[in-house]
Amino acid sequence: MIAPVVKPNFAKIGGLVPAIAQDYATGEVLMLAYMNEDSWKETLSSGMATYYSRSRKQLWKKGETSGNLQVIKEIRLDCDEDTVLLRIEQIGNAACHLGYKSCFFRTVNQDGTLSIVEDRIFDPEKVYGNTKE
Amino acid sequence: MIAPVVKPNFAKIGGLVPAIAQDYATGEVLMLAYMNEDSWKETLSSGMATYYSRSRKQLWKKGETSGNLQVIKEIRLDCDEDTVLLRIEQIGNAACHLGYKSCFFRTVNQDGTLSIVEDRIFDPEKVYGNTKE
Repeated sequence: MIAPVVKPNFAKIGGLVPAIAQDYATGEVLMLAYMNEDSWKETLSSGMATYYSRSRKQLWKKGETSGNLQVIKEIRLDCDEDTVLLRIEQIGNAACHLGYKSCFFRTVNQDGTLSIVEDRIFDPEKVYGNTKE
Repeated sequence: MIAPVVKPNFAKIGGLVPAIAQDYATGEVLMLAYMNEDSWKETLSSGMATYYSRSRKQLWKKGETSGNLQVIKEIRLDCDEDTVLLRIEQIGNAACHLGYKSCFFRTVNQDGTLSIVEDRIFDPEKVYGNTKE
């Protein structure tokens, strides 16, 4: 007998489900991206977080360009089976393409403005090749 | 001069953005739901997490039925401004309608099966009134 292989309910919301990446050691929420069924299978088989890029319309192995890969430590599925929680080790200590550890590096103030509350880990221009340095 | 009031880019994905609720004290990820612009405004003005129910097609003040309200401690916005992170105090210590603290109470095992890894906090039948007890 082949063990049943669980998967999110991709059909429910147009083939994509949100996937939250959380730092396994600290509990910090690092980013949210989307997964289709292929990226789910690839994440399970490779042990590295692999999303679906809605803008590029293709599989997106997180960290492929920057080197900031996400090593899967645990995967959780929610009660409705339409959201994934990836508990990961963030290589390079930065998940955000703007150079911060978390994409949620800004807080909403009481007056409705935003403040940056994290330090930048890397310079995105150097990492993503917009400069020749 | 009126201070600019920040908001997520609701137009980007059909008027709704995902909102992650995280326990402010422990860092646990409790649930993911969706917000429209009205629920964003209501959350900011009331200080209580208010989502948009896709199934009921109406504003959804979390905990209205169960009493398990979510008190907003901090709101973060991500780099692309299409995901919200609500850092909250979970009243009743359970966010999930199935009676668990977190909706992510199941882990995906190596063999592709699911295991429950949290304790149940309440009996949903008693809280949501499917029994007469």
